[in-house]
Amino acid sequence: MKLKNPTPINWKFSERAEQLQSSVIREILKVTSRPEVISFAGGLPSPETFPVERMQAAFDKVLATQGKSALQYGTSDGYAPLREFLANSLSTADCKITPDQILMVSGSQQGLDLLGKVLIDEGSKILVETPSYLGALQAFSVYQPEFVSVDTDEHGLIPSSVSAKGEGARLMYALPNFQNPTGRTMSLERRIELVEICARMGIPLIEDNPYGDLCYSGEPLPKMLNMNPDGVIYMGSFSKVLTPGIRLGYVVGPTKLIRKLEQAKQAADLHTSQLTQMAVYEVIKDGFLGEHIPTIRTFYARQCQVMLDALTKFFPAGVEWTKPEGGMFIWITLPAHIDSNELLDDAIKQNVAFVPGGPFYANNPAKNTMRLSFVTVSPERINEGVEKLGKLIQARL
Amino acid sequence: MKLKNPTPINWKFSERAEQLQSSVIREILKVTSRPEVISFAGGLPSPETFPVERMQAAFDKVLATQGKSALQYGTSDGYAPLREFLANSLSTADCKITPDQILMVSGSQQGLDLLGKVLIDEGSKILVETPSYLGALQAFSVYQPEFVSVDTDEHGLIPSSVSAKGEGARLMYALPNFQNPTGRTMSLERRIELVEICARMGIPLIEDNPYGDLCYSGEPLPKMLNMNPDGVIYMGSFSKVLTPGIRLGYVVGPTKLIRKLEQAKQAADLHTSQLTQMAVYEVIKDGFLGEHIPTIRTFYARQCQVMLDALTKFFPAGVEWTKPEGGMFIWITLPAHIDSNELLDDAIKQNVAFVPGGPFYANNPAKNTMRLSFVTVSPERINEGVEKLGKLIQARL
Repeated sequence: MKLKNPTPINWKFSERAEQLQSSVIREILKVTSRPEVISFAGGLPSPETFPVERMQAAFDKVLATQGKSALQYGTSDGYAPLREFLANSLSTADCKITPDQILMVSGSQQGLDLLGKVLIDEGSKILVETPSYLGALQAFSVYQPEFVSVDTDEHGLIPSSVSAKGEGARLMYALPNFQNPTGRTMSLERRIELVEICARMGIPLIEDNPYGDLCYSGEPLPKMLNMNPDGVIYMGSFSKVLTPGIRLGYVVGPTKLIRKLEQAKQAADLHTSQLTQMAVYEVIKDGFLGEHIPTIRTFYARQCQVMLDALTKFFPAGVEWTKPEGGMFIWITLPAHIDSNELLDDAIKQNVAFVPGGPFYANNPAKNTMRLSFVTVSPERINEGVEKLGKLIQARL
Repeated sequence: MKLKNPTPINWKFSERAEQLQSSVIREILKVTSRPEVISFAGGLPSPETFPVERMQAAFDKVLATQGKSALQYGTSDGYAPLREFLANSLSTADCKITPDQILMVSGSQQGLDLLGKVLIDEGSKILVETPSYLGALQAFSVYQPEFVSVDTDEHGLIPSSVSAKGEGARLMYALPNFQNPTGRTMSLERRIELVEICARMGIPLIEDNPYGDLCYSGEPLPKMLNMNPDGVIYMGSFSKVLTPGIRLGYVVGPTKLIRKLEQAKQAADLHTSQLTQMAVYEVIKDGFLGEHIPTIRTFYARQCQVMLDALTKFFPAGVEWTKPEGGMFIWITLPAHIDSNELLDDAIKQNVAFVPGGPFYANNPAKNTMRLSFVTVSPERINEGVEKLGKLIQARL
C-alpha cells in the first residue's frame, strides 16, 4: 500500500523555527562523550550527589499506595501537596507565598519557554545579562524578541544599566546566584536596587535560581521574589539539588501571570508527570533537602577549590577567572586576541573540552571567554586537564 | 527588605497568549469531580486498565540497576533503546522506520505543540477535521493559524474536500482511528486517497493515533505513515495503552523534520524524563503490550455496548449517535434546535455531565452535538446517566 514515488515534501518551516539552532553545548557534549576526554564542558550535576536509593523508595511507595492516581492524568497547575510545600518553603516573615502562585513545570527550561510564549511578541525588547544563560537565550529566541544586553561587572548585573536601557522592555531575565556561565553572585544591595528599578519601570523581573542553594559557605542571599512578589517571577528547579533526569521545576509569580502560564502549559503538554511530582514530594516532605544539600555544597566547594588551585598553578599570566562562592562554573577571560573556539579545537585533539564563551552573549560575543565546569571530573583529572589547557593558552600568547 | 507599595505591574501578555483559553473540558472536569456526578465528560482512560504493579516493578528495577543514568540529564531525541523498539514496531514489510525518525515527547500533546511551533506562521492555512480534537485546536491556535475545516461524514474525513480546500495549506491534521470526539474511523480506501492527495499537494499529513490499538475486534487498519513515510507525521502515545499520568508519547517523521522538532524540544524542555522512558522500555520490551492491550479492548468494548444499548433504550427518536468500533467516545447529534450547552446546565443539576460538541469545531460549531465517554463509569451508572439525559432531551423536543 506504499505510494510509488510520491512527490517529496518541500518542507517549509515557520520563521521562528528557521532560526532555531541546536545548543552549542549539546553539540560539544556529543563530541566529548568519549571516556578518555576530560570534559569541563558539561552543565551536568555530579551523579555522585544523586540520592538514588531515596528516589527508588519514593517511587516504590507512591506506586504501592497511590498507584492509580499517580498514573492518571493530573491537573495542569501541578500536584497540590507539592505546591503547598514549596509555597511554605518560599515564604518569609513579611512575604507569604501561596500554592496558587506556583506552576509546576517539566524542568525550569519549560518555565523559560512558557514565559517566552506568554510575554514575548515578535520584536519585543527583553533584557538579559552580559553574558547570560544559553538555555534562556535559546528558549526566548523562539519568540523572536530584540535582546538588549545589560552591563555587568565582577559583582554581576549593574542595575543602573537597566534604568539606562530598559524603557519599554517586556522582561528582565537575571540569574543572581552563581550565575551560569560566570559563577558570579549579585550583591544584596544590587538585588534591592534591581527590584526597585524594575518595579518603577514596570518591567517583570525573572529571577532564575537553579544554583542558589549550592552556596559553599553561609546562607543564600534573600530572594528578589520576596522583595516584590507582585513584580518578580521566580524559577526553581530540582535538577541541581535532587536529580535532573526527572525534569521537574516550578515557576512562582503573581496569580494573574500564573493562570496565563497554566493555560499555556495545558496547550504545551497538559501537565507534568503526576508520578514524578508525587515521588519528589515523598522524598522532600520531611525535610530531606535540609540534610542532603549541605553534602552537595561540601563536595562542589572542594571540587571548585581544586580547579582554582590548578588554574593558579597552570594558567599563564594575563588570564583571569572568577572565584565562585557556589554553583558549578568558573568563567575564564583570556587575553583579548585568543579565540576560545580555536583553543577548543586544539584542546579536543588533546582530549580536553570546555564551552567557548561566545554563545552566552545575546549581542557582541566576547570570543576570548570560556566556561569551565568542575563538578563531574575527579581532582586528578581536573589538574591534568587544566595543565593541558594552560600549555595550549601559553602557546598562543 | 520587601518593597513598600511598589507600582503594580500592568501585565502585558503576548498576542498569542491573549487568545489562549483554558480547555472547556478541563473546566467542566473541575465542576464534575464530585463523586455523586455521573460524568461522561472525561477523556481519561479507565484506571482499571493501569498495570500498576508492572510499572512499580519497572521503576524499581531501573532505579536499582541504572539509577544514576536514569536520574541524569538525557538526550533531547529520547532514550535510544525505546526509540529502537518503537521503530521496529512501526516498520512494515515495505516500509522500514529507523530510530532517527523518532522523537520522544512529554505526551503527544507536546508533539502537537512542537509541530505547531515549527510548521505554523501567523496566518498559515492549516486543515483540520470537522469536528476535530480539541487539544490539537488548542495547541495549534497558540501559533495563530487560519483553520480550514475539512468536510467529514460517517466514515470520517472526505479526502476530496482536501483537494478542494487545501491549496497552500501548511499541514493536514487527522485522527483516523476512533476519532476524538466522534469515535469515527476512516476507511482504508479513504486513507490511501488522503495520503495520495496530500503528497500530490505537498501538504504534510499529521496522523494522530492515540486510540488506534483500542479496536474492539479484528486488527487496526494500516497506518498512513507506512503508505508515505516521507510525507506523513505520525503521533503515538502511551496514555491509552499503558498510563497517561507519566506523560510519554512520540512523533515519527522524515529526519529533516524530526531534527528541527528536536531543536524545538531542546528549547522547550531539554528532554523527556529519562527515568520514565527507561521504565516504560522495561515494561514493554518483552512484548507486554501484546497481552495487555487485548484486555483493554475487551473492557472498553463491553462498556461501549452498555452505553449503545442504553442510548437505544432511553434516547428519543430524532437523536443520532455514532457506533464506534474502538476507542473511548460516542458522538451524539441532537435535533438541530437543541443546544447542548443548555442541556449540560440541566444535566449538571441532575448530577450528569458530558462535553458539549461546539468547542471541537474550528469553525461554525454545531451546537446540537455532544461527546460521551463510556470508559470510566460503571454499567449501572451508564444506564442511570443515559436515562436522565434521555428525559432531559425529551423535555426539549
